[in-house]
Amino acid sequence: MKPSLSFVTLGVSDLQRSLSFYRDGLGLPTRGIVGEEFETGAVAFFDLHGGLKLALWPQASLAQEVGMSPAPVSPTAFSLAHNVSSRGEVDEIMASAEAAGAAVVKRPYDTFYGGYAGWFADPDGHLWEIAWNPAYEVPGP
Amino acid sequence: MKPSLSFVTLGVSDLQRSLSFYRDGLGLPTRGIVGEEFETGAVAFFDLHGGLKLALWPQASLAQEVGMSPAPVSPTAFSLAHNVSSRGEVDEIMASAEAAGAAVVKRPYDTFYGGYAGWFADPDGHLWEIAWNPAYEVPGP
Repeated sequence: MKPSLSFVTLGVSDLQRSLSFYRDGLGLPTRGIVGEEFETGAVAFFDLHGGLKLALWPQASLAQEVGMSPAPVSPTAFSLAHNVSSRGEVDEIMASAEAAGAAVVKRPYDTFYGGYAGWFADPDGHLWEIAWNPAYEVPGP
Repeated sequence: MKPSLSFVTLGVSDLQRSLSFYRDGLGLPTRGIVGEEFETGAVAFFDLHGGLKLALWPQASLAQEVGMSPAPVSPTAFSLAHNVSSRGEVDEIMASAEAAGAAVVKRPYDTFYGGYAGWFADPDGHLWEIAWNPAYEVPGP
């Protein structure tokens, strides 16, 4: 298949709470909750760089769509990383996330590769790394 | 924070097996396993559209990095979607994934939004949707 990803969908337990966290807390752009006219359709999309979309979808809806039972979120099963251009941005975003209710999993620290990174968990336990890596060119606008 | 994602990292139980699944089974481009010189450093990256990278990292390494205990992967906690430009591509990619050892979670079906989609789970249970949506412009090359 072509090397592209269209959506990253996070299963959430409270769509309104997660929308608020990502929109108001982290400042990501969204039209808010759409699709409420469809059973299991309510979802919030965030437009990210490169045509990628982050989707927040109730975990119960995702489970129903695929015919599985919801299981507890596993914070070590996957993570999303947002790279930034400076150490200061790592601190700023970690502070914003914490103020918005994220659990700080690991406060910013010097990484083995000469960078600086911190980790937080969103309201459902989904894991994010905010990282500055001097060897990495940050994609996007 | 800026609306961009740098890495999507999947925790895996067998890095070589997952590398083979994504590289040989799905055809995603990679330099293979790198970083083996560092403790918990072994990882495989796949370059995706827009500067995004998919990373395969042993779940034990991820857990150690953030100071958590590994918990079983929750297939309903999140999903990745790969959109394509035709129904036929959905069938093709689902067949490739199945041949490479994926569990077919939901065979391709007509979706409520007038599209066509199928779902599979990778060797660790991470969920993928392969979808054709006539109203969606596929990003990427």
